[in-house]
Amino acid sequence: MTNEILEQHRQELHTHLTQELLPFWMTRTADQAHGGYITHFDQFGEDSGEDEKSLIAQTRSIYTYASAHRAGYGDGALADLARHGVDYLIDRMWDNEHGGFYWMTNRKGEVLDDQKIVYGQSFAIYCLSEYTLATGDPRGLEYAQKVFDLLQKYTSDTCYGGYFEMFHRDWTLKGPGSAGGDRKTLDAHMHLMEAFTTLYECSGQSIHRRKLQEVIDLLVGKIMHPTYGTGVPQFWADWRVAPQIKFDVIWGWDRFTEDGVKREAEDNTSYGHNAEFAWLLLHALDILETPPETYRSHLQKPLSHALTYGIDWAYGGVYVEGSHGGVVYDREKEFWQQAEMLIGLLDAYLLFGDDTYWKAYEAVHRFVMDRMVNHPVGEWWPLMTRQGVPIWTHMSHSWKINYHTVRSMVQSIKRLDKLMARE
Amino acid sequence: MTNEILEQHRQELHTHLTQELLPFWMTRTADQAHGGYITHFDQFGEDSGEDEKSLIAQTRSIYTYASAHRAGYGDGALADLARHGVDYLIDRMWDNEHGGFYWMTNRKGEVLDDQKIVYGQSFAIYCLSEYTLATGDPRGLEYAQKVFDLLQKYTSDTCYGGYFEMFHRDWTLKGPGSAGGDRKTLDAHMHLMEAFTTLYECSGQSIHRRKLQEVIDLLVGKIMHPTYGTGVPQFWADWRVAPQIKFDVIWGWDRFTEDGVKREAEDNTSYGHNAEFAWLLLHALDILETPPETYRSHLQKPLSHALTYGIDWAYGGVYVEGSHGGVVYDREKEFWQQAEMLIGLLDAYLLFGDDTYWKAYEAVHRFVMDRMVNHPVGEWWPLMTRQGVPIWTHMSHSWKINYHTVRSMVQSIKRLDKLMARE
Repeated sequence: MTNEILEQHRQELHTHLTQELLPFWMTRTADQAHGGYITHFDQFGEDSGEDEKSLIAQTRSIYTYASAHRAGYGDGALADLARHGVDYLIDRMWDNEHGGFYWMTNRKGEVLDDQKIVYGQSFAIYCLSEYTLATGDPRGLEYAQKVFDLLQKYTSDTCYGGYFEMFHRDWTLKGPGSAGGDRKTLDAHMHLMEAFTTLYECSGQSIHRRKLQEVIDLLVGKIMHPTYGTGVPQFWADWRVAPQIKFDVIWGWDRFTEDGVKREAEDNTSYGHNAEFAWLLLHALDILETPPETYRSHLQKPLSHALTYGIDWAYGGVYVEGSHGGVVYDREKEFWQQAEMLIGLLDAYLLFGDDTYWKAYEAVHRFVMDRMVNHPVGEWWPLMTRQGVPIWTHMSHSWKINYHTVRSMVQSIKRLDKLMARE
Repeated sequence: MTNEILEQHRQELHTHLTQELLPFWMTRTADQAHGGYITHFDQFGEDSGEDEKSLIAQTRSIYTYASAHRAGYGDGALADLARHGVDYLIDRMWDNEHGGFYWMTNRKGEVLDDQKIVYGQSFAIYCLSEYTLATGDPRGLEYAQKVFDLLQKYTSDTCYGGYFEMFHRDWTLKGPGSAGGDRKTLDAHMHLMEAFTTLYECSGQSIHRRKLQEVIDLLVGKIMHPTYGTGVPQFWADWRVAPQIKFDVIWGWDRFTEDGVKREAEDNTSYGHNAEFAWLLLHALDILETPPETYRSHLQKPLSHALTYGIDWAYGGVYVEGSHGGVVYDREKEFWQQAEMLIGLLDAYLLFGDDTYWKAYEAVHRFVMDRMVNHPVGEWWPLMTRQGVPIWTHMSHSWKINYHTVRSMVQSIKRLDKLMARE
C-alpha cells in the first residue's frame, strides 16, 4: 500500500476523532450536578434522560478519556475528564462493606443494582490501570488491584479453572440458568485478558503477569474453537459448550428470540468479537514481550475466518455473526464489530502482509465513514441494515458509550502510522 | 460386634492416649527458652538436638493440642500448650512483608528457609481454625483467613484449576522438575480439603464452603483414579498423570531410589493415604451437611481397595503402598498409615456395615498396640519391618510429630463410641 493511501485513511480517522467524536463527549458527558458521566444521548445528541449510571458506561468512559489522553489527545482536558469519572466511581460505586463496584446507580449516585458482575469488574481494572498510566494518579492502580484480589478470591473456579461471572453483592455465586451462576463466557474471559494486560503494564507485578498468562492459555486452550479458532460464546462450569442464552444481567443489546435462546445457539460466533480477541491477544503478547509467532495459529484463524466469511464486499462493513464453519446468520451492521474489525484487520495486515486484509480494511473503513458515523452529531449509529440504513438510532446508552468508537480511532491511527513507517 | 469387644478396644486406645501419648508431649515439647515447640526426640524420648522448627511440625502440634482440648482432654493444659505454639507461629514464622508462613526457622526463631509451600500453609489454616474452635481466641481464624486469601490469590491455577504448590518467599512460582513448580499433587489437595473443612466449620463463611466444595470436586473428578478410586500422587499442571518424583522441599521421609524417582512411578498408590482421603472426605461432607450417599463410590472404592490389598492378615497392620490394580510393592509398616487406617476402617464399618472392615480394624489395632507403640516411652516407632521390628527409631522429627498418632486415637475413640451407641 502506498503511503499516500495510508495517509488519506489516517487523516479521515484523525479528523473524525478530533473534530467529531471527542468533541461530542467533551461537550456533554460530565455530570456537573452529581459527578460521573451522563451516558444517554439520542440521535440528535440530546440527553435522553434515562436515570441510570451503569458500571460499564462509567468505566468505559474513564478508559476512553484516559487512553485518549495517553495517546496525546485533548491537551490535558481528557485527563481532567477521566479524573472526574474516577472520583465518582470510587466515591459512589465502590462497595465499602464487601468490596468491588456496584452494577448500577441512578444519576444521583444511589445504588439501583448492587450485584457484582465480573464483566463490569474487569472494565474497572482496565480503566483504572489505564487511568494511572495516563495520569500518574495512584488511586487507579490502588483500586484496580483491590478488584483483582477480589476476583481471585471470590470468582475463580479452583476446580475447573476460569472465572465464574455472576455474583450477589456479597460475592456469593448466583443461581443457574438465566441467573448465569453455572456458566462461563468467552466475553468475560476476553475482557479479563484485556484488563490484566493493562494492569500488568501499569503494575509490573509478577502475579498480574501470571494471571494474564493463565487467562491467555485458557482462551486459546478451551474457549476458542479447537478447529476454527473462533470464539465459542458460552460454556458450562466444566468447559463443555453450553447453548447461548440471555442472562438476567446483560451488558449489551444482543438479539435473542423471545424465549431468550439464541438462534443456532450451539454453533454461533461473532466476526467482530473474534477480530477483537485477536488484536487484544496480540497486544497482550506485546506487553508480555512474547513473540506473536508463539500464538500464530490462534491469531491467524479468527482473523482469517472474519476475512473470509464476515466482510461484506458488496456494501462494506462486517456482518454480525455466523457459524464456525462459515454460514452467515445475520448480515446487519452493528457499531462495535465495525470498530473492532478496523483494528483487527490492520493488525492482520501488519502481521501477515496479505493484501486482502488491506482490501477488507478499506471495505469496513468506507462503510464506517460513509454510513455508520452520524457526522453532523459526531457519534456512530448503533445498528444499521446491511445497506447502511439506521435501525436503532440512539447515540449512546449504558451499553454503547464510546469505548469501541474512540479506541478504534486511536488504535487504528497507531497502526496506520506503523504501516507508513514501514513503507 | 458386641459392646464388650468395642469397649475393650476403646479402653486400650484411651489408656494409650491419656497415659502415654499426651503425657509424652505435655512433659517435653514446650520450648520455654525460645517459644514454640521442640519437636525432635530420639527413641528414648530425649531431645535429639536438631536446630530446626518446621512449619509442619509447629502447625501439626498446634492442631494436636487444640483438637485434643476440644475433644475434652487435658483439663485446659492442652489449650495453654496450643496457645504457646500459636504465639510462636504468629510472632516468628509469619512473613510481615509478603504474608504467609515461612517454611523453617531454627530453634531461636531465625528464618532458615523462607519459601512458601502450600502443604505447610494448608496445615496453618487447619490448626489455626481448630485453635479458634477449641479456645475462642480470634487470632486463629484471623490468620487462617489471611492464609486462605493468599492461597486464592497466589497459588490457584486459573487455567486448569487446582493449586500450584511450590513458591518463593514473594509467592512467585518455583521452576519445573524437582523444584515442583510445574506439578500438582494429591497430597496438597487432600490437605487443603482437610484445612478448608475446619476453616468453614470455624467461620461459616460461604466462600470457605465454596472453595471446599471445589477442592472436593477436583479430588473426586481428577485426582483420584477414575477406575479404582485410589489416589494418584502427582500430576502436570493440566492434570495429565506425572511420574512421581522427589521434590527439593519435602514434607516426609518417603522412600525414593537414589535418582529421586519412585519405583513404579506412574502406578503407585498408598493404602493409608487412601483411607485418610476417605475419612477426611466423609468428615467434610458431615460439616457441609451433604449426605455421604452423594459420594458413596468415592468413599467405598479407596476403602475397599485398602481392605482388599493393604491389610496384612498374617502380621497385622497395613502395608505402605502398591499398584492401583492390587499388586503390593512395599510390605513394611509406617506409623502414619496405621494411624489413618484405624479411623478409615472404623468409618467404613460404620458406613457399610461389612464385618470384614471390623476384622481389618482389629488386625491394624493389634499391630499398633502390640508392635508400633513404644510403650515405655509413649510414642510410636516411625517405620518397622513387616513383622514389627523397628527400622527407624526416632520418636519425632520435623515430619513425624504427633498429628497422626494423637488424632488417630481421638478420632477412633469417637467412632468406637458411635458404634457402641448403635448396638
